[in-house]
Amino acid sequence: MNTVTAVEELRETATVERAGARPAQRLADVHALFAEEMGWVDAELRSLTSRGMTPATDSARHLLDAGGKRVRPLAVLLAAGCFGPIPQAARDLAVVSELIHLATLLHDDVLDDAPVRRGKPTARTLWGNAVSVLAGDLLLTHALERTSQVAPRPILLELFATLRRLVDGEVVQLRGRTEIDARPATYFAIVRDKTASLFVWATRSGAAIAGAPAEAIDALGAYGEHIGTAFQLVDDVLDYAGDTERTGKALFADLREGKITLPLLLAVEREPGLSRLLEPARAGHHDATTRLLAAVHAHGTCDAVRRRAREETEQGLAALERLPASGSRDLLAAIAGELASRAR
Amino acid sequence: MNTVTAVEELRETATVERAGARPAQRLADVHALFAEEMGWVDAELRSLTSRGMTPATDSARHLLDAGGKRVRPLAVLLAAGCFGPIPQAARDLAVVSELIHLATLLHDDVLDDAPVRRGKPTARTLWGNAVSVLAGDLLLTHALERTSQVAPRPILLELFATLRRLVDGEVVQLRGRTEIDARPATYFAIVRDKTASLFVWATRSGAAIAGAPAEAIDALGAYGEHIGTAFQLVDDVLDYAGDTERTGKALFADLREGKITLPLLLAVEREPGLSRLLEPARAGHHDATTRLLAAVHAHGTCDAVRRRAREETEQGLAALERLPASGSRDLLAAIAGELASRAR
Repeated sequence: MNTVTAVEELRETATVERAGARPAQRLADVHALFAEEMGWVDAELRSLTSRGMTPATDSARHLLDAGGKRVRPLAVLLAAGCFGPIPQAARDLAVVSELIHLATLLHDDVLDDAPVRRGKPTARTLWGNAVSVLAGDLLLTHALERTSQVAPRPILLELFATLRRLVDGEVVQLRGRTEIDARPATYFAIVRDKTASLFVWATRSGAAIAGAPAEAIDALGAYGEHIGTAFQLVDDVLDYAGDTERTGKALFADLREGKITLPLLLAVEREPGLSRLLEPARAGHHDATTRLLAAVHAHGTCDAVRRRAREETEQGLAALERLPASGSRDLLAAIAGELASRAR
Repeated sequence: MNTVTAVEELRETATVERAGARPAQRLADVHALFAEEMGWVDAELRSLTSRGMTPATDSARHLLDAGGKRVRPLAVLLAAGCFGPIPQAARDLAVVSELIHLATLLHDDVLDDAPVRRGKPTARTLWGNAVSVLAGDLLLTHALERTSQVAPRPILLELFATLRRLVDGEVVQLRGRTEIDARPATYFAIVRDKTASLFVWATRSGAAIAGAPAEAIDALGAYGEHIGTAFQLVDDVLDYAGDTERTGKALFADLREGKITLPLLLAVEREPGLSRLLEPARAGHHDATTRLLAAVHAHGTCDAVRRRAREETEQGLAALERLPASGSRDLLAAIAGELASRAR
């Protein structure tokens, strides 16, 4: 189906509402609208992770096959779609955004000694840390190579800056393993560097490759920053209150890895005495962990974090208002609502 | 000291002879000639590994401070010097070549679970695998970013192809952990991908950035391929016969990591019965390991590998003959001899 027609149709049948209302299935609807583009993106990802059939490509394809929401490629395509027909180079950058995401997951799994990802054993469990490191290096190389081939230099340079932020975010987060830091400022710095930065690049580069003016690129970048932050906030809620069947992730993994995320951080703010339990819980003491988890639920901080995620979403929607009206803009608004209220 | 003058002087005082004769100290002499350029390169490397003062930069600087021969930056500078005064961008690419090398070392140490590198505990021993992975990612990002800033696209694209070869070489080498492969073809494929490829990029990009014609770039690439191969052959000899005080490396580490290198491979060729000991030795059985090491020494295969390294060096020197005569060309010839006969 032609995209422009599809968007028109979607608008006509009034299935696109503003975020907040009836978000379920919306991401799937948007995916269906972009079935042709996303099919191409998936085929490219599959092709890049099949070359040579080595353990490195096998492990990358294993991760790819395990699923994932492909939100970042969709963000690139929709950002480009705000300024007319989606150019081929935007599809390439959509592939790049997912390659970078997959590369960070492969390296993250080594950092976190993670046993499970997307409901399946992680690549490092099946192939070992070495293969995960190399597979991540390979995907990173493919991503940067593709970008340098299809995009003007500023987009490539913004990608390098993004990669530095991704590393910075991980480095600050790693410190939590040896040194408890329960300051909200630290938490938000990690979220913005580790998660939001790639959403920012996705939306900015999609707009830029489609020839958008600077103010529109900035508006889409602001949207990316806010929905990326909301996305991570919800992720952190799901670690405390998710349905493991649906998320494919183990519960309470963050605390075990020394990550003090916002649900716990707010509980400590409300009940400062809990802070003395952080260190024992991080070290794996069962009683301390149980006490903290009970406190998170007692104080209802997961609801508070979801509210904060919706505030970020509202700010993201406000940024979209700075763009000319378009079907793609409406769809960006729709997926923002979906991401803030998702259960997986 | 001005480089051109310095090279002239070196030629005049006839301290540069062809490889094979009196190689000791020659690499140090060449370094001294390029003290100003190499000082700039080292300052840049130090600056890039000091930004932010995080565990990732600390671990990268630890590796930098542990020493290293800085052969790749020297190769970039000398390749550029064959075509006139060395441009600033060649200095930048010299930095890039060492950044890539350092990044691969940081990731390699995680792959190999290596305890010692350059005579010091590895970064992963001091800071953990996670920090080594991130530090490698950071240096890789710096390297690619710098290249995209100073070099035309073909040099960047060749760097991506090189990175893919580096990963391929590691992946094939990793297979040795689960599956013994004592074929010379496999060994040489690993050497060319894992080691020679970066020397090829160093010499080709140095020439290209200095405006060399295509045939000269190819000649320097051939030189890089041969001396890079010779470099790795000697490295593999030093694992069996090196002076640990001088190399800063543990002996016989390769076999323990499942790497069947040429000294052992030639011993197995001469005494096929040894092949049944490869698997037990890889698995850590002491008797099998001792038998194999004794066979390597009994068959004198380390000398044979050194001879093979000198043959590669001769081919590298022949490639240099395709270039116009210059002081830098003579220095490239000099370091080729040094690398093939080094003891550390």
